[in-house]
Amino acid sequence: MGNVAQGFRDYFCRPKNTNIRISLPAVCFVWQTAMIILFGVFIRYDEESDTHWVEHRREANITSDLENDFYFRYPSFQDVHVMIFVGFGFLMTFLKRYSFGAVGFNFLVAAFGIQWALLMQGWFHSLDPETGKIYIGVESLINADFCVAGCLIAYGAVLGKVSPVQLLVLTLFGVTLFAVEEYIILDLIHARDAGGSMVIHTFGGYYGLAISWVLYRPNLHQSKRLNGSVYHSDVFAMIGTLFLWMFWPSFNSAITDHGDGQHRAAINTYLALASTVLTTYAISSLSAKRGKLDMVHIQNATLAGGVAMGTAAEFMIQPYGSLIVGFCCGILSTLGYLVLSPFMERVLKIQDTCGVHNLHAMPGVIGGVVGAITAAAATVDVYGKEGLINTFDFEGDFVNRTVGSQGGHQAAGLCVSIVFGIGGGALVGTILRFPIWGDPEDDNCYDDEVYWELPEDEESIPPILEYNNHMVTKNPDMSESNFSVEQS
Amino acid sequence: MGNVAQGFRDYFCRPKNTNIRISLPAVCFVWQTAMIILFGVFIRYDEESDTHWVEHRREANITSDLENDFYFRYPSFQDVHVMIFVGFGFLMTFLKRYSFGAVGFNFLVAAFGIQWALLMQGWFHSLDPETGKIYIGVESLINADFCVAGCLIAYGAVLGKVSPVQLLVLTLFGVTLFAVEEYIILDLIHARDAGGSMVIHTFGGYYGLAISWVLYRPNLHQSKRLNGSVYHSDVFAMIGTLFLWMFWPSFNSAITDHGDGQHRAAINTYLALASTVLTTYAISSLSAKRGKLDMVHIQNATLAGGVAMGTAAEFMIQPYGSLIVGFCCGILSTLGYLVLSPFMERVLKIQDTCGVHNLHAMPGVIGGVVGAITAAAATVDVYGKEGLINTFDFEGDFVNRTVGSQGGHQAAGLCVSIVFGIGGGALVGTILRFPIWGDPEDDNCYDDEVYWELPEDEESIPPILEYNNHMVTKNPDMSESNFSVEQS
Amino acid sequence: MGNVAQGFRDYFCRPKNTNIRISLPAVCFVWQTAMIILFGVFIRYDEESDTHWVEHRREANITSDLENDFYFRYPSFQDVHVMIFVGFGFLMTFLKRYSFGAVGFNFLVAAFGIQWALLMQGWFHSLDPETGKIYIGVESLINADFCVAGCLIAYGAVLGKVSPVQLLVLTLFGVTLFAVEEYIILDLIHARDAGGSMVIHTFGGYYGLAISWVLYRPNLHQSKRLNGSVYHSDVFAMIGTLFLWMFWPSFNSAITDHGDGQHRAAINTYLALASTVLTTYAISSLSAKRGKLDMVHIQNATLAGGVAMGTAAEFMIQPYGSLIVGFCCGILSTLGYLVLSPFMERVLKIQDTCGVHNLHAMPGVIGGVVGAITAAAATVDVYGKEGLINTFDFEGDFVNRTVGSQGGHQAAGLCVSIVFGIGGGALVGTILRFPIWGDPEDDNCYDDEVYWELPEDEESIPPILEYNNHMVTKNPDMSESNFSVEQS
Repeated sequence: MGNVAQGFRDYFCRPKNTNIRISLPAVCFVWQTAMIILFGVFIRYDEESDTHWVEHRREANITSDLENDFYFRYPSFQDVHVMIFVGFGFLMTFLKRYSFGAVGFNFLVAAFGIQWALLMQGWFHSLDPETGKIYIGVESLINADFCVAGCLIAYGAVLGKVSPVQLLVLTLFGVTLFAVEEYIILDLIHARDAGGSMVIHTFGGYYGLAISWVLYRPNLHQSKRLNGSVYHSDVFAMIGTLFLWMFWPSFNSAITDHGDGQHRAAINTYLALASTVLTTYAISSLSAKRGKLDMVHIQNATLAGGVAMGTAAEFMIQPYGSLIVGFCCGILSTLGYLVLSPFMERVLKIQDTCGVHNLHAMPGVIGGVVGAITAAAATVDVYGKEGLINTFDFEGDFVNRTVGSQGGHQAAGLCVSIVFGIGGGALVGTILRFPIWGDPEDDNCYDDEVYWELPEDEESIPPILEYNNHMVTKNPDMSESNFSVEQS
Repeated sequence: MGNVAQGFRDYFCRPKNTNIRISLPAVCFVWQTAMIILFGVFIRYDEESDTHWVEHRREANITSDLENDFYFRYPSFQDVHVMIFVGFGFLMTFLKRYSFGAVGFNFLVAAFGIQWALLMQGWFHSLDPETGKIYIGVESLINADFCVAGCLIAYGAVLGKVSPVQLLVLTLFGVTLFAVEEYIILDLIHARDAGGSMVIHTFGGYYGLAISWVLYRPNLHQSKRLNGSVYHSDVFAMIGTLFLWMFWPSFNSAITDHGDGQHRAAINTYLALASTVLTTYAISSLSAKRGKLDMVHIQNATLAGGVAMGTAAEFMIQPYGSLIVGFCCGILSTLGYLVLSPFMERVLKIQDTCGVHNLHAMPGVIGGVVGAITAAAATVDVYGKEGLINTFDFEGDFVNRTVGSQGGHQAAGLCVSIVFGIGGGALVGTILRFPIWGDPEDDNCYDDEVYWELPEDEESIPPILEYNNHMVTKNPDMSESNFSVEQS
Repeated sequence: MGNVAQGFRDYFCRPKNTNIRISLPAVCFVWQTAMIILFGVFIRYDEESDTHWVEHRREANITSDLENDFYFRYPSFQDVHVMIFVGFGFLMTFLKRYSFGAVGFNFLVAAFGIQWALLMQGWFHSLDPETGKIYIGVESLINADFCVAGCLIAYGAVLGKVSPVQLLVLTLFGVTLFAVEEYIILDLIHARDAGGSMVIHTFGGYYGLAISWVLYRPNLHQSKRLNGSVYHSDVFAMIGTLFLWMFWPSFNSAITDHGDGQHRAAINTYLALASTVLTTYAISSLSAKRGKLDMVHIQNATLAGGVAMGTAAEFMIQPYGSLIVGFCCGILSTLGYLVLSPFMERVLKIQDTCGVHNLHAMPGVIGGVVGAITAAAATVDVYGKEGLINTFDFEGDFVNRTVGSQGGHQAAGLCVSIVFGIGGGALVGTILRFPIWGDPEDDNCYDDEVYWELPEDEESIPPILEYNNHMVTKNPDMSESNFSVEQS
């Protein structure tokens, strides 16, 4: 059957044309023009970023410009921004010849996605029914970055195997699906998920895995020579890892409640991440001959604790609770790289380049479960009466909800994110199989050569080798004869 | 005539001595000593960074320490600081053997320039006539960083072709010119330019181009082997690109009005930059055989939208307006790299290593024009009465200025920045032609070897090559004979 | 005697077993479990990160959520966080084959240490005697990062020569000693040291040097081939340098007084660092044949001014005072690398891989002295009456202290930090000599191979070399004969 499928693929897809000279510019121009029109119709500054702020401020009896949300959230926004562009981008530079693609396509996808996210999230969350406008401020920018994060996670699963045009399609649908599931989870179900364990990481992870499953390449081993790192590419990847790790407290606290909400979310994430590092190193060492550490684990599994605190970071999970979550995630995520990833590739036919299952999908699910349990276990004793209402936003339609019910709704939210991820990914993956997107051959994956003008290849030529090259270049025949003579 | 000029150059300049052992330390010590003396005479803490703040606060009925400008501006300051030192520094590391010079001289120039900028800007903008002192706070630090940015832009045009001593001279004059043109544009003409499209980018760009024009090297092709990137140097450069891109919203909002001013400037810049990325990728792909992307465009043209929003970011240009500006800048800047840069080098004899014309000068001019148009088109309807006054600072001597007049003054400001850039650059370039500054030969440009102790050359020696090297090193004669024997 | 010692070492330590497969996971798991238990018993959210904040706020008549300490300190915290993980981590990547160890063990040590620091500093500084709990907030996180900085400095002295298990032991004791000396210096002696010239840099520096002295390796020259940089490892190290340099103003102002305290500390540090850069470049150039700059100096000595402002940054040292401190530190630190480090290695038998003596210990001592002098020279005239009390915290038990007395106490604090550093280091070094920790052989230092699974070695193989390799790999015998034939 594998042969038949292969034959079908050969007939349907060959010869693959990786020329994106028409498709990429076309998509970019059409899309950007559409964005300008839609922004013109829909998007305006909100009252805190409009020049009328000074009047609004006086009318609302706000005593200081500092009460502008900008000062509550802008530092966190910039941290999140660094995570999206440098964090995700450099984390994926680990491959020996896909650093341009990792950083460059991450850049393209994110810049493309944030504009669409502002519209989609605006339509679902903040469309003013009277004026028909969406009013944006710094929190909108954070949410747009968050939304794009889901697609960048999915990119991790298909890294090196897709064309930039496919990535833009993936992002277009990804952002759309994200906005819908986010609306269902946060607004309809009223689950809390400020750091996005469910809406970002679970959704993004399964979205990418499902796409990768549909796009399964049986002959990917032909690109095996490039599916690995070199020394310096691993160091570049650590730039991504560390900026993600350091700024994750900002990620999980960026849109939580002013005051204690942001404060607590940052502390919890900080602690969970510290704990994750220790257990990651432990399992990585334990699993190797002579206890040698594996950079793949250090680059990825150390971040799992941040993912898993995405939901519960703003709750009163207590410092030791955060440590426990991190403890477990470090172990499970590292074991994922050791055991699950090979299993998934061999048995489930899911090729997951960056291991997003271990870093995002699984810890995201853990985070959703931890959030549900923590919510269900909340008490007035611990939270205070007002604190409980503030933390879970038991207001408006949800004034009568109990913490037990909230726990159930959190779990329901988790299910929605999984369903959207897998379902959406399967759908989008099918679209991406059309032979029009310019994706590379099986023997040409993980190679920047396909989509980038590469500079000369040698890093630096030591003097003696320069001499050799020089000789050889000048008299290639002689060089050949050199060897043949010696053999005779 | 070229030959005569070359002959003159040969006579006048040869043999070039790149030994900076006396000149560099002498300049550094003399200059730093002068700085200490001048700071001792002129510079003091302002009322918000002085221990008398607590009394000042009480007297001024300020309710909270948070009203200290530190909390409004420090996060933005740190983002700007990162742009100056990591952003500009790493952006220039793309050359295969000039990364030390790129990051290292950028570091030296910036540290040198910010001190002089504090003095120059202080004398022009905030000298207290009573006490004869300059009082500095966090906004002064941001302005000093801004001022240095102009010189770092100019460095981009002459990257690899000048000595560090020349760079210090360039900076000394550059900061001085900057402070004067800034005073004329912002204070006398009363143009608005919070993100410095005109005062920073247009000035800095033309300043560097004019210097490069005067320092034209007809035989620069002799260094052609080093005028290009290698794989990892391009990845390093992306660190610079991304930190500039991510923090540009902070750059353009760092010194705008508290409250809505900072908020709006950040949003506009964020949007313009996102839009620029898409059109840059589009044009880059469209211009290449098989649609392959060029790292030079991605590293540079993606930033043009930030430059072009430097003036209008704080205005009510509307989100879609920002997108339009970014859209155009991505196209024009990329086309600049494709078409204009070769033209300028061949016809105008301007060698622009980093393409600062496409990244700074041209987008800066666009930014100035966009600012003038946006200002002229401002209405009370859109801004509100108070908003209009606040945004354009129609107070004091300028209380009667109309928005139409403001538009004209904005355009006048743009002209001043161009004149100062070209005129100042021609002057300083002439000074830099004196054969005393230790600049490299035409066949020795773009090479860290000239000014840096370099480590061993090889990145990593694979086992078998190590063996070869070992052999050859031990018996160099044998090695030679090896080849000669084979040839016979 | 050297021979005897060597014999003793040979007998006692050989054969060294660098297998850490049991020891590293064991330490990590035991330790992390202990942390969870101790956090469960002791650590809770403080009133600003607890959900009761909303009630607390109302009771305390706090008008805005912004008064939550989070908004005063979180941006600075994130800057410090970047310094700890990216700054220290990448600064140590300069070695050609120890980048994984530099960044990776830095990461492990810091994540391990911050948890223990929260406990140790909590017990000494903020244990509530009634509840027996430690209440943590954002300032606790900053202090934990600070505490870990001391151990990371010590790591710099032994970089490449110790196992990760030894590093964890070093950190365990280091954090403990830090908390005690900090308690003595800040609480009992009541010295001021917000940026930690004494408690962080002097202690950390001497702690590391003393450990390195006890662990002296007479045959370390056997690893000489790896004790140096390559081109790109120096560029990576500049990432560390620049992030440390840029964010040092945040480091020194992170826990100073709200308002003018933070503001002034940032300004002073900014200025001192700028000044340091110029004198570092000057001395580096002056000391080399043809004035060529040395990356070791640029990477390290440029930071000395930040270290030396750690104590006095919050005082009214005046802008020119900061410049003078930076001026001297750049000179002394660079001379340290040129003169002192070789002397220390040859005569004092202290092998200091990163030169922490020149970057931390010596500038730390200078900082302590500058702090003592600046404190002793303080006057009501300059500080204002309230300002003096606020700055030196002359309250409670210390209400009657004079500035002269304060200067003496500052000096006493400096002595305590030196004594703790040297004494503690000697003790811990002795513990680390036990032959159970898995440290490498003398001929195997500075090598990631020992503790890391390394990727394939070659960076990139130019086509022609690939051909050579190919030939040789396929017919190794032929290759050998190749050479032998030629020799005959």
